[in-house]
Amino acid sequence: MNVKDFQWKKDITVKELIQQYGQVGFQSVELAKAADVFVKMKKNSAKVFLTFTSNMVTSGLRGFFAQLIKLKFADVIVTTVGGLEEDIMKANGEKFSVGRFEADDVELHEQGVNRVGNLFVKNESYMNFEDWITPVLDELYQKQKRWAVSELLREIGLKLNDENSILYQAAKNNVPIFCPAITDGAFGFHLYLFQQKHSDFIVDVVKDFGNILFCTSHDDKKAVIALGGSISKHHAILCTLLNGGANYAVYMTTAQRTSGSMSGATTNEAKSWGKVKDDSDVATVIGDVTIMFPLAMIKALEELSEEGLLE
Amino acid sequence: MNVKDFQWKKDITVKELIQQYGQVGFQSVELAKAADVFVKMKKNSAKVFLTFTSNMVTSGLRGFFAQLIKLKFADVIVTTVGGLEEDIMKANGEKFSVGRFEADDVELHEQGVNRVGNLFVKNESYMNFEDWITPVLDELYQKQKRWAVSELLREIGLKLNDENSILYQAAKNNVPIFCPAITDGAFGFHLYLFQQKHSDFIVDVVKDFGNILFCTSHDDKKAVIALGGSISKHHAILCTLLNGGANYAVYMTTAQRTSGSMSGATTNEAKSWGKVKDDSDVATVIGDVTIMFPLAMIKALEELSEEGLLE
Amino acid sequence: MNVKDFQWKKDITVKELIQQYGQVGFQSVELAKAADVFVKMKKNSAKVFLTFTSNMVTSGLRGFFAQLIKLKFADVIVTTVGGLEEDIMKANGEKFSVGRFEADDVELHEQGVNRVGNLFVKNESYMNFEDWITPVLDELYQKQKRWAVSELLREIGLKLNDENSILYQAAKNNVPIFCPAITDGAFGFHLYLFQQKHSDFIVDVVKDFGNILFCTSHDDKKAVIALGGSISKHHAILCTLLNGGANYAVYMTTAQRTSGSMSGATTNEAKSWGKVKDDSDVATVIGDVTIMFPLAMIKALEELSEEGLLE
Amino acid sequence: MNVKDFQWKKDITVKELIQQYGQVGFQSVELAKAADVFVKMKKNSAKVFLTFTSNMVTSGLRGFFAQLIKLKFADVIVTTVGGLEEDIMKANGEKFSVGRFEADDVELHEQGVNRVGNLFVKNESYMNFEDWITPVLDELYQKQKRWAVSELLREIGLKLNDENSILYQAAKNNVPIFCPAITDGAFGFHLYLFQQKHSDFIVDVVKDFGNILFCTSHDDKKAVIALGGSISKHHAILCTLLNGGANYAVYMTTAQRTSGSMSGATTNEAKSWGKVKDDSDVATVIGDVTIMFPLAMIKALEELSEEGLLE
Repeated sequence: MNVKDFQWKKDITVKELIQQYGQVGFQSVELAKAADVFVKMKKNSAKVFLTFTSNMVTSGLRGFFAQLIKLKFADVIVTTVGGLEEDIMKANGEKFSVGRFEADDVELHEQGVNRVGNLFVKNESYMNFEDWITPVLDELYQKQKRWAVSELLREIGLKLNDENSILYQAAKNNVPIFCPAITDGAFGFHLYLFQQKHSDFIVDVVKDFGNILFCTSHDDKKAVIALGGSISKHHAILCTLLNGGANYAVYMTTAQRTSGSMSGATTNEAKSWGKVKDDSDVATVIGDVTIMFPLAMIKALEELSEEGLLE
Repeated sequence: MNVKDFQWKKDITVKELIQQYGQVGFQSVELAKAADVFVKMKKNSAKVFLTFTSNMVTSGLRGFFAQLIKLKFADVIVTTVGGLEEDIMKANGEKFSVGRFEADDVELHEQGVNRVGNLFVKNESYMNFEDWITPVLDELYQKQKRWAVSELLREIGLKLNDENSILYQAAKNNVPIFCPAITDGAFGFHLYLFQQKHSDFIVDVVKDFGNILFCTSHDDKKAVIALGGSISKHHAILCTLLNGGANYAVYMTTAQRTSGSMSGATTNEAKSWGKVKDDSDVATVIGDVTIMFPLAMIKALEELSEEGLLE
Repeated sequence: MNVKDFQWKKDITVKELIQQYGQVGFQSVELAKAADVFVKMKKNSAKVFLTFTSNMVTSGLRGFFAQLIKLKFADVIVTTVGGLEEDIMKANGEKFSVGRFEADDVELHEQGVNRVGNLFVKNESYMNFEDWITPVLDELYQKQKRWAVSELLREIGLKLNDENSILYQAAKNNVPIFCPAITDGAFGFHLYLFQQKHSDFIVDVVKDFGNILFCTSHDDKKAVIALGGSISKHHAILCTLLNGGANYAVYMTTAQRTSGSMSGATTNEAKSWGKVKDDSDVATVIGDVTIMFPLAMIKALEELSEEGLLE
Repeated sequence: MNVKDFQWKKDITVKELIQQYGQVGFQSVELAKAADVFVKMKKNSAKVFLTFTSNMVTSGLRGFFAQLIKLKFADVIVTTVGGLEEDIMKANGEKFSVGRFEADDVELHEQGVNRVGNLFVKNESYMNFEDWITPVLDELYQKQKRWAVSELLREIGLKLNDENSILYQAAKNNVPIFCPAITDGAFGFHLYLFQQKHSDFIVDVVKDFGNILFCTSHDDKKAVIALGGSISKHHAILCTLLNGGANYAVYMTTAQRTSGSMSGATTNEAKSWGKVKDDSDVATVIGDVTIMFPLAMIKALEELSEEGLLE
């Protein structure tokens, strides 16, 4: 395929843009490839693991993740607890604001504002979260004493009422959410306080490993979409590895392979482990997920929608 | 401004996407800001310096740069010589192809193929370039013996006939192209061979410094769009500095500020030098230019076009 | 302080080098600052949280971490489970090898070799780990049914016998190891298999949150050394936050702040959250931890040793 | 070679550290490899092209580069003009200071301070440079009217008197300095002003291409040490390419290969072009040059010195 001169034409759609990107060069080519892999994974009925880090839920991607669950694009979610807390905050009406990377952090601290890159979250939102979660834990404890993480998250999702909520859409569409480090956030602290009062309250992470393992089988085609790095990414590919490896994988991240980190590990590296199959369709896109992911996924959604393959 | 949940809707245009990006977070916010700065620089009739590195001309952005010149968006071009060579090759019908970052470089070498990231350029294209440039130099030498670089490049542009060529559009639209390191490429080698035969042939880089300096004045509003780093970026901001600083600046690059390089220097750092004015409108976007630049510029072109501000 | 011309002199020590780095520029300055913060945290008897990601244990830094525990530099360890598995493998005699980033991953897969950047780990090492861990779990289960993670890891450490083992040195020196995502690795799979046979076997992550919370107090001076990102980093700073914030913090990572990730979050961003105190001594060093960390830490160890402050 | 547990021992030298780095992992392994390539290029009497960007001369590496010229390690220098200006400033007694990346740039501007990452340069230093260079140009013009860049730089070097100056050591040791974009800085502006008064004053960049081309031959073994990217790197490898390719190459940079830039281009990519020979000894190290380069080069100097191979 030849490089082709890029041209703007008025009212160009995202789909048309990404089509051109496939012949531009460098990461634009990899992005177009990612869109193709997204289409293939759905056309071939792979079970799709969608993984992302907390900061993406701080951002407006949260609504897009919820939409993808609603559209039945994602079959399994793996993420970190910070994002789930923020999903609940937003479902309960909390507003996050767009700030600046260069803001004065000492001043922000005095104002009770927490910074995540160029986004701001108020302390107040955390306090309101606390007020909401405490009675919920009480209620769940009445039901049963020992909870696998994904089961607990499903119950929480059922209590929310927000079309743009990841937890809500996941619960409604029977998409399990796995969170292997459930205590690593404010939620963990509240679980701890609750257990202080109810020592037989147990969050069973070991059982949940079985749950994620058995939400796909060796025979299923499997796909991993890993946005950012961290344990979300690792956990999904570990589980596909244990089930014979993924057939499709798209990694999007700003991390590079050169420091040997999991975050920067490429889809090629995954082949050595059998995390993805040797002959799988893969793409690794380097760049900010808030820009890269909507671009590639929109291209895929448009194509799937045209072919009547989206519900 | 609050963070807003991102939602795909069918047939979404690039313009609508970037509008949403302004409320998503991280680099998507900076990208939307860049689009706004692009609009402002044109609305306020700033003289626009567009700078880019050679690899972007290897890519399909070449046609987009040519289009921007044709649309009178760019008033001055600063770039490196490798890109100009490739612009000529493409204007003369050479094809570059989309390859892979992981290609076997020793094998490529045996096949006479040169790799630029995931793009491939044939040795043959360089040989054809040589065949073309040699008589052109002869002809130019007949006209005069001493050439400022931008004047020489203008003459070359007039000899091409390709709507997608940067040199062609620049020559046709009276947009000067500056290339402070004109010898740093195959072209430099051919200039050297030519001078061996004609010792009074002179490429006057010092005179061209005056040319770039006087293509804007202290009184003009000035804007810099720096894509990638290198001397292209530095040369443009040096010239705006000497004329009182830029009023608008957008930097797009994958380089980070942390190593103190010119490539990673931010629009803030530029303020300490007076390269951009203290109260200027600026944006620094981190990411691959082949993706970032079309996105932000298309948003601006759509807006300017709607308001009848594009020629 | 002025920039000073760097000069090599024969037999230069690491300490002398880092002293010069403080006046060189860019990341060398930040590295020298990190060394100073390391010295201050020990001189002022802060409780030191040392956090690192798994790939650093794949690397030879493993022995250095063990040495730091032995030297009483680190008071609390937070890490991910993959590294703990590898620490056990190495303690049991497994050898990892130095390979290449560009190795053919499909070929490696056929040979039963897994790649982590430019390091290679054999499948066999994982199988031997399985053979070792299974009877250990049996034995622990005989002792008690419900285990906080750090207590379980302590028992495992007591079973190893390797001066260079993190788990061994930690157990021997009463340094707790926290691992908030204990199931995210081969170990998780073995826990799962074990629980299948013994449904009353419980790994209590909630209880362990209390353990990490109470290993320091509001009154303690606290320090965080975060190597790489991921939940290791987040978990430590979350716990210092809940105890009033850290007085000292050094972050070393290749991740940049620009994508809003936890991995790239700076010590400044931490101030907005109260994760580190407003007036704390902090340093953020951008670079590969395998190079950066030994450099800065050796400088600190030399100084502390000279002053008789190392045990 | 196996991964080996890293251990600090008191008074460890840089040489001992880098020896250990070869068995640690990730970039530490690449760094140790770079040290080996440095040794080999000298042992095999290759002609060494040392290239660096201006910001490294802003930093204290300036004195190290001068030392390497004095030690006959470098045979040819390629750099950008900003660094040469700063080398002159420093030789004339100007002091640069260590500042902060987060400094307030508008405030710095008011104080007449220019920021380069975390280093500060005063406007005054630029003004003193102007006062010094103007009569020098007059004097050179009396000698001859047409100057190749490297010849002009040699004359300037002979006027300085500072052991730590790159220009001084280069002139004294007959090491040519090439600067393909000589006008891209304050020096360019002064050349322009001078030419305004003396229109027959010519800086001949084309002739200098011949000079760099003939400072090595096809038969020479050739080595490239490229610190950072930009045209310094490109120019050196272009010239080795035209002479049959380099036998040794070490690239050190923070730029990654993923955006297809020259700065991030790897030594492998260079093989496709014949810029380095297929069977050459190469290393690409990712990281901040102010830290990486002294480490690897000191290791090489110690070895060469022990074997009596340093002058």
